[in-house]
Amino acid sequence: MSDYIAPVRDTHFVIHETLEAQNMETPGYDELDRDFTHDVLNAAARIAKEVFAPLNRIGDQAGCRLDNGVVRTPPGFANAIAELRSGGWFGLEGSAEYGGQEMPCLLGIAAGEYFASANMSLSMYNGLTQGAIKTIESHGTEEQKRAYLPKLNAGSWFATMNLTEPHCGTDLGLLKSAATPLGNGNYSISGEKIFISSGDHDLSENIVHLLLAKIPGGPEGSRGISLFIVPKFQISGDGSLGSRNGISVSRIESKMGIKGNATCALRYEDSIGQLLGEEHGGLRAMFTMMNAARLHVGLQGYAVAEAAYQSAAAYAGDRLQGRAISGAKYPRLPADPIIVHPDVRRNLLDQKSFVEGARALALWCATLIDREMRGGDRRSAGLVSLLTPVIKGFLTDKGFETAVAAQQVFGGHGYIEDLDASQRVRDARITMIYEGANGVQALDLVGRKLAANGGESVGILVEKMKNFAESGSGESWYRDEVLAPLANAACDLECAAAWLAEESSNDPDSCLAGSYDFMHLAGYACTGFMWAKMARAAANALSDGRMDEMFLRAKIITGRHYMSRHLPATRLHLRRIQMGGKNIMALPDDAFQAQL
Amino acid sequence: MSDYIAPVRDTHFVIHETLEAQNMETPGYDELDRDFTHDVLNAAARIAKEVFAPLNRIGDQAGCRLDNGVVRTPPGFANAIAELRSGGWFGLEGSAEYGGQEMPCLLGIAAGEYFASANMSLSMYNGLTQGAIKTIESHGTEEQKRAYLPKLNAGSWFATMNLTEPHCGTDLGLLKSAATPLGNGNYSISGEKIFISSGDHDLSENIVHLLLAKIPGGPEGSRGISLFIVPKFQISGDGSLGSRNGISVSRIESKMGIKGNATCALRYEDSIGQLLGEEHGGLRAMFTMMNAARLHVGLQGYAVAEAAYQSAAAYAGDRLQGRAISGAKYPRLPADPIIVHPDVRRNLLDQKSFVEGARALALWCATLIDREMRGGDRRSAGLVSLLTPVIKGFLTDKGFETAVAAQQVFGGHGYIEDLDASQRVRDARITMIYEGANGVQALDLVGRKLAANGGESVGILVEKMKNFAESGSGESWYRDEVLAPLANAACDLECAAAWLAEESSNDPDSCLAGSYDFMHLAGYACTGFMWAKMARAAANALSDGRMDEMFLRAKIITGRHYMSRHLPATRLHLRRIQMGGKNIMALPDDAFQAQL
Repeated sequence: MSDYIAPVRDTHFVIHETLEAQNMETPGYDELDRDFTHDVLNAAARIAKEVFAPLNRIGDQAGCRLDNGVVRTPPGFANAIAELRSGGWFGLEGSAEYGGQEMPCLLGIAAGEYFASANMSLSMYNGLTQGAIKTIESHGTEEQKRAYLPKLNAGSWFATMNLTEPHCGTDLGLLKSAATPLGNGNYSISGEKIFISSGDHDLSENIVHLLLAKIPGGPEGSRGISLFIVPKFQISGDGSLGSRNGISVSRIESKMGIKGNATCALRYEDSIGQLLGEEHGGLRAMFTMMNAARLHVGLQGYAVAEAAYQSAAAYAGDRLQGRAISGAKYPRLPADPIIVHPDVRRNLLDQKSFVEGARALALWCATLIDREMRGGDRRSAGLVSLLTPVIKGFLTDKGFETAVAAQQVFGGHGYIEDLDASQRVRDARITMIYEGANGVQALDLVGRKLAANGGESVGILVEKMKNFAESGSGESWYRDEVLAPLANAACDLECAAAWLAEESSNDPDSCLAGSYDFMHLAGYACTGFMWAKMARAAANALSDGRMDEMFLRAKIITGRHYMSRHLPATRLHLRRIQMGGKNIMALPDDAFQAQL
Repeated sequence: MSDYIAPVRDTHFVIHETLEAQNMETPGYDELDRDFTHDVLNAAARIAKEVFAPLNRIGDQAGCRLDNGVVRTPPGFANAIAELRSGGWFGLEGSAEYGGQEMPCLLGIAAGEYFASANMSLSMYNGLTQGAIKTIESHGTEEQKRAYLPKLNAGSWFATMNLTEPHCGTDLGLLKSAATPLGNGNYSISGEKIFISSGDHDLSENIVHLLLAKIPGGPEGSRGISLFIVPKFQISGDGSLGSRNGISVSRIESKMGIKGNATCALRYEDSIGQLLGEEHGGLRAMFTMMNAARLHVGLQGYAVAEAAYQSAAAYAGDRLQGRAISGAKYPRLPADPIIVHPDVRRNLLDQKSFVEGARALALWCATLIDREMRGGDRRSAGLVSLLTPVIKGFLTDKGFETAVAAQQVFGGHGYIEDLDASQRVRDARITMIYEGANGVQALDLVGRKLAANGGESVGILVEKMKNFAESGSGESWYRDEVLAPLANAACDLECAAAWLAEESSNDPDSCLAGSYDFMHLAGYACTGFMWAKMARAAANALSDGRMDEMFLRAKIITGRHYMSRHLPATRLHLRRIQMGGKNIMALPDDAFQAQL
């Protein structure tokens, strides 16, 4: 099935009715009137539906092949990339000076969702390139910017991230790839990198590898890591492509999903690269790319869930099985469609309420990024830093859960590879793992982000929620079923943060034992905050007669569902956090192992 | 990796220390002394480890093939089946009169777990045959029993269940397969059946299909369904195999997982079958098989989770990455194994506490089945009927969740098909779907089982929990961290059942909107009940100096983890149930669909 339809109206509702982006006074946002966003979003929606979606099952079935050292992507991918390229989508957010369109992150996130929903594997070739553009913009020399950015913005060259080695992923201090200075500003780089998304392919003229390696003699551990640009084909002084660099594809990994993306193991042998950023400052530079990538992975979480939901909702409206318990709803049919059954509707509303809440959260975060990057707002930067692991960790956990719930609607048919339900689950699974497994996101959140600047950012977040909850206006359903649960969730978030701050010096193990629960608590609270805003915006639009009435009523019902059934999970997470880690740490390491 | 080790000691602990099976006064249980169960369990453990586990990855990679109408199972499967056959495992629970070993269900469930952990696809060939044995024992004529049971008990012939057709699964009233009486006691059967596990293969001399079809002229809907025995090869008067029946394999389904099992679409054309049980009484007869199968699927849920957990725990003890936050725990190694990190331990304890609790719950249910079947105990029968959908639905949902959590421990390596982590997830996924998708289990639980005999069974269950919780004995940690949460959970279960009983006449939609939450609430409460019993048994064994001290201490820590972190979820489920279904039913059917 390739019946994916981009939810343009919902994106509009978030940008214009909920966030009221145009009133935000962020530089560049004054352009974002309804017609402008409409044009951009519809252009993305068309490519997603007509070009990307029809290749989704093909990518899964055909996969990528390694023929005599050359990687072949699935049939049709090259044509799809050509459309993306000619539409200017690679350089959407790149700075105009180097050929980019300099659009706000808000539109990048909005459009990126559609591409990832329609075909996650295919969209990754573009997604990683956009992350590299940001990294080179932030850390490159003027010469590097001139050499790489126009090509990357044009989509003529793609980019990759090379961090992981067979023996190390999270703990990059252990890495072995070595970069030896050649004296002419170049380095000779050798090593083995694995799990490189879009690592090699037949889709672009050149591939720009951003690679972490150690310069011999540097400091031990992660303080001795540097970032390098290592192009597949070397670049001559006049910008033309030179000889092939010492990079070979050892294998394409056989994966559970995202089979249309060539995840490669790459061998670097005396390949020539240039330092990007400071010597031994590689981790800091790479974080620019990783933070962009983490938000993009969070986006993939709800994007795949949206596509899975759409298929499930369509199937539930078509599949005839049984009768409604209160009497036949479609008496002319041999049985009612399964959408009449309360538990099927409960399941679909769980999915719908997550996806719409997640979309709003990611777009809100995009507005904070724009305020940080375009307006230099320090408080926004702090919030973005806090929200990044929440968006990556929570939205991918729940996105996967949603894809599984969608698959369930199909019954046995969801387990057969004829439909796309299994693929959505298999594709979504990687989002919880790559760009830092979600346990690492929780560690980043609780071990670093929460305490930054004396906990300023979480304080700001709680205050925003409380202020909103305490506004107390609206009809009684809104006060009782929306604002009251939000106030509880804000309270739980505040309590949990305070408990963790207290415990972080007393007993750091106890603190980290609750890190995953805190990530979920924060995710629920933020998503609930978005739903409170959306429910108010829908009620206002309804009373003003703006937008379609059925859409707005559905928005309110979906929001009430989230606030009443999902948001209260914050209390359970708070209780778990407050239990600390004594019992968890008490089990001897050996006692985990199976024994006869 | 095929390092699976059957958890024989834990099974022993449940049977002898926790359930004290030998004191139960169930006919046949007097034989269950420690030596006897030890021999049976160790024999199963050996086959699981040495024969089944090494074929697990092979089955996933090779899958089943259809060559000119003949189904070929993965290499090695036939040899493994031969070992199972010679060990007498097919007829483990079959009655001695027809060549079975007449062992209690308790041992069948205990051993069945090991086979399913080691190789789920392979174990299904046996599992379905055991369900058919029970069905023919309950509903067959003496002639049918003599014709089929000795062969099935010996494992010379295997069996299948044929329910689903392309247009219907849950709603069997819609089925189209037709059985026309031939006048000689035989029927001519034609129709199309899909999703038939072990539907055809090269592992046994004959395959006995149990098939639902309609006799023309019978009542409409599910009251007009009859059950038939349709053998692949017809059986001559002297018991020898006759001509091939009119059954062909249309295709082997391409599935997300359990690829070693040949899931077939079968076409019946004028095949010859015999009625099993009453005319138009097919659904009742099939429920014997389905109930056995549902418990077996619940078992698969935690069995796959156990295997996934074992791999994850082993990996966490080996993989070096980062240092413990409280300082290096293994300073001689370049980094600590990841098992030192609190969140990794939290994850592993979540897995371990689920699997061990689930095992105890399934074994407890097996003792109730034995009391029902061997002792004719009506109250036990009622509890089994109530627990069946809970075990099927809850243990498979949580089993899948556990397999996903185990995969997470591997980071990126868990997503690559080199290891078994992805396969465990893909295999486990089917358990939530087949033998009645879990939403259907929830419907069965709340729509039928809960109200049976005026709610007698749930009352008995709640009373058992309350009595146990109110016993109040033990050390303070036991009272505060084990008995108190159990009392809360019992209370939540009672409240939820009362609310649903009240609402079932007022507003059945509201009742069913909470059905899935009730299934999970009941699952948590029952698992918590088992943990309370296990924690007490471990404390007693510890003070008496029985069993290994590290094992018992680990049991207590694991139990405290479950009781404090997981059991309190009952409150959230209760709140959701009490919200009813008004909001869920309010969204118009069309409003679920994606629209531009």
